[in-house]
Amino acid sequence: MTVAQAGLITLTTDFGLADPFVGIMKGRILGQLPGARLVDLSHALPAGRADLAGFWLAHAWREFPPATVHLAVVDPGVGTARRVLLASISGQLLLAPDNGLLPEALRGRAGVEWRVMDPGLPARLQLGPMSRTFHGRDLFAPLAAWLAAGTLSPAEFGPRAEPQDPAPLPRPRREADGITGRVLLADHFGNLFTNIDAPLVSACRQPVAEVAGRSLAVLSTYCDAPRGEPLALVNAFELLEIAINGASAAAVLGLGEGAAVRLRDGLRA
Amino acid sequence: MTVAQAGLITLTTDFGLADPFVGIMKGRILGQLPGARLVDLSHALPAGRADLAGFWLAHAWREFPPATVHLAVVDPGVGTARRVLLASISGQLLLAPDNGLLPEALRGRAGVEWRVMDPGLPARLQLGPMSRTFHGRDLFAPLAAWLAAGTLSPAEFGPRAEPQDPAPLPRPRREADGITGRVLLADHFGNLFTNIDAPLVSACRQPVAEVAGRSLAVLSTYCDAPRGEPLALVNAFELLEIAINGASAAAVLGLGEGAAVRLRDGLRA
Amino acid sequence: MTVAQAGLITLTTDFGLADPFVGIMKGRILGQLPGARLVDLSHALPAGRADLAGFWLAHAWREFPPATVHLAVVDPGVGTARRVLLASISGQLLLAPDNGLLPEALRGRAGVEWRVMDPGLPARLQLGPMSRTFHGRDLFAPLAAWLAAGTLSPAEFGPRAEPQDPAPLPRPRREADGITGRVLLADHFGNLFTNIDAPLVSACRQPVAEVAGRSLAVLSTYCDAPRGEPLALVNAFELLEIAINGASAAAVLGLGEGAAVRLRDGLRA
Repeated sequence: MTVAQAGLITLTTDFGLADPFVGIMKGRILGQLPGARLVDLSHALPAGRADLAGFWLAHAWREFPPATVHLAVVDPGVGTARRVLLASISGQLLLAPDNGLLPEALRGRAGVEWRVMDPGLPARLQLGPMSRTFHGRDLFAPLAAWLAAGTLSPAEFGPRAEPQDPAPLPRPRREADGITGRVLLADHFGNLFTNIDAPLVSACRQPVAEVAGRSLAVLSTYCDAPRGEPLALVNAFELLEIAINGASAAAVLGLGEGAAVRLRDGLRA
Repeated sequence: MTVAQAGLITLTTDFGLADPFVGIMKGRILGQLPGARLVDLSHALPAGRADLAGFWLAHAWREFPPATVHLAVVDPGVGTARRVLLASISGQLLLAPDNGLLPEALRGRAGVEWRVMDPGLPARLQLGPMSRTFHGRDLFAPLAAWLAAGTLSPAEFGPRAEPQDPAPLPRPRREADGITGRVLLADHFGNLFTNIDAPLVSACRQPVAEVAGRSLAVLSTYCDAPRGEPLALVNAFELLEIAINGASAAAVLGLGEGAAVRLRDGLRA
Repeated sequence: MTVAQAGLITLTTDFGLADPFVGIMKGRILGQLPGARLVDLSHALPAGRADLAGFWLAHAWREFPPATVHLAVVDPGVGTARRVLLASISGQLLLAPDNGLLPEALRGRAGVEWRVMDPGLPARLQLGPMSRTFHGRDLFAPLAAWLAAGTLSPAEFGPRAEPQDPAPLPRPRREADGITGRVLLADHFGNLFTNIDAPLVSACRQPVAEVAGRSLAVLSTYCDAPRGEPLALVNAFELLEIAINGASAAAVLGLGEGAAVRLRDGLRA
């Protein structure tokens, strides 16, 4: 199966799927590496939100087989002199603008080798004309193809350098009587992902989540709550989540990104 | 072309495409079966509607080549003890929660072999930690990979058992002066699919559809009606459809799922 | 890598992704050519807009490797006797209804060989029952598979013929004191693509775009304008674009398709 396994590339962007921007990137990749295999992670990330793209990439990249190249283009600085970043970890490669996306994707991981693109690389690889508005096509797609083909090594990509990390996602705060966190996002079902992680929940003997004036027991599954009732649980991404069995917590509770969530131990007075 | 044909898996979910849930499932599949080939059917099915997922899968699965595995995850009971179902038919496999999805997909088909997953299978296959909220990733994706690789046979999957069929889609009622059916769904173009099928229409010498107080002739193509005018026709899925040439019948007529549609023979008094 | 490169087919439709129409087309292709490799360009084109489908295909097809088949189904005349068109250029094939889509995609290109399908071809290829509402599945998908497999040559497809071009996209008008153009579309980010191309902009010593009562300098990148401020630039598709750094020009300026845009030389009195 060697042939079919060559050149696996995932794509994550904020380009949407209405226009064929992603399809055009895929064409540029396939035009250079016709055997490339392409997997979409998401293209509906909020415009310009490198932090949220990094959050999701953090929960996706480890699923993929060795030698996968993960290309993430959320690039509000397109056309400027912003740097291009490459991270190598566990035999996989992650490529993105140097705007905080990859540090969020690899937060807390050991063994990451960071490199920034040699500014002379596009000319040396003869990437051709470089537009000022669509580096996904003109720069990132061909770089991903070169890397996935194995014909461009990380060392040839550019020198080692520390990434920029201008706006990390908020972290929960530990307080005298519990933890104060935030809603990071509402997913497709209206489930509210918070930044309070599983170990913080496990540290409570009887964890209780407080949100929008309600106290919610931390249950195991959506169906542990009656239909239509709010609940908290630790979700598949090891985060405390506020949900409603059979409905959208975001819509019913009127909550979204940034909303405060408190975690306390119900066995403490 | 043997290599490229190995491991074809289709995916049908209600996960949406905004979050990378589907991409993460694909990663889990590819991490285990790097040569897998993945085709999306739909990920925008109404949340929790196993019946509609089954309806669409019914119209899709037969198109695919032998040995295809069709994975459908509409799973409001995720994390509970609901069973996992495997159907074998004509050399293809269909995998889903046991919630009525697959019986709808295979309604009226002969030669289906139904099996339910042996509860000990995930441990035996060493599928790893099982979240309570994302069995698409933790359970269904790796099972589909094992089945598509041919390294897990239906007999190893689990014993034969009859599927549950809790909420089948409504069937049309035959009455003295015609047929009473329902709108099943409005498609992307606002065309209204009904549950009245082609043989019922063919049985009328001069079929007339009555909907929202209008009597519509059953024509052959959209363009047989003047632009902007409602019509009925038998669509590509062999169902009576209410449409408007060049516009959305759902929007213009204000109709959707559940609306009553009557079919009568215009040559009967 | 010969195996993996066989049978690359791109798909462009107005079918949306909510219903599995595109997945069903892919099944029909794979059922016939199991080694086919499928790339989505866009499926969210405005319903029935062959001209806009052609516009985007124009900017996508050249990215792909030789022997790619580009299938585009925007087909308001489905089920009627409208012709089916095949264009060969530079070793690639483009297949679509004969409704102006492909002439828009190949506007200004030399060396196009145009052919219309022999009406007897579907029967000769034994394509099977032909619905009146879904030729994407019943006609175009299997034709694309035959062409991508190399088992149907353009000459066997049908005789040479000139395509129909009923409603080309508007062209800019040259006037005494500048150029008057139109907004063609608003993209996912709300950037407004105009029909004024790069050479017209380059011909001005100091290009100024006038839109909605404002005069905008033509800058190089989005970030050359302050955040929240409108600007004009030549975009990655070599078209004059009206944008706002960090926001949607379509929403903020209240403009969309058809809006007038004037280009003048600021150094002219």
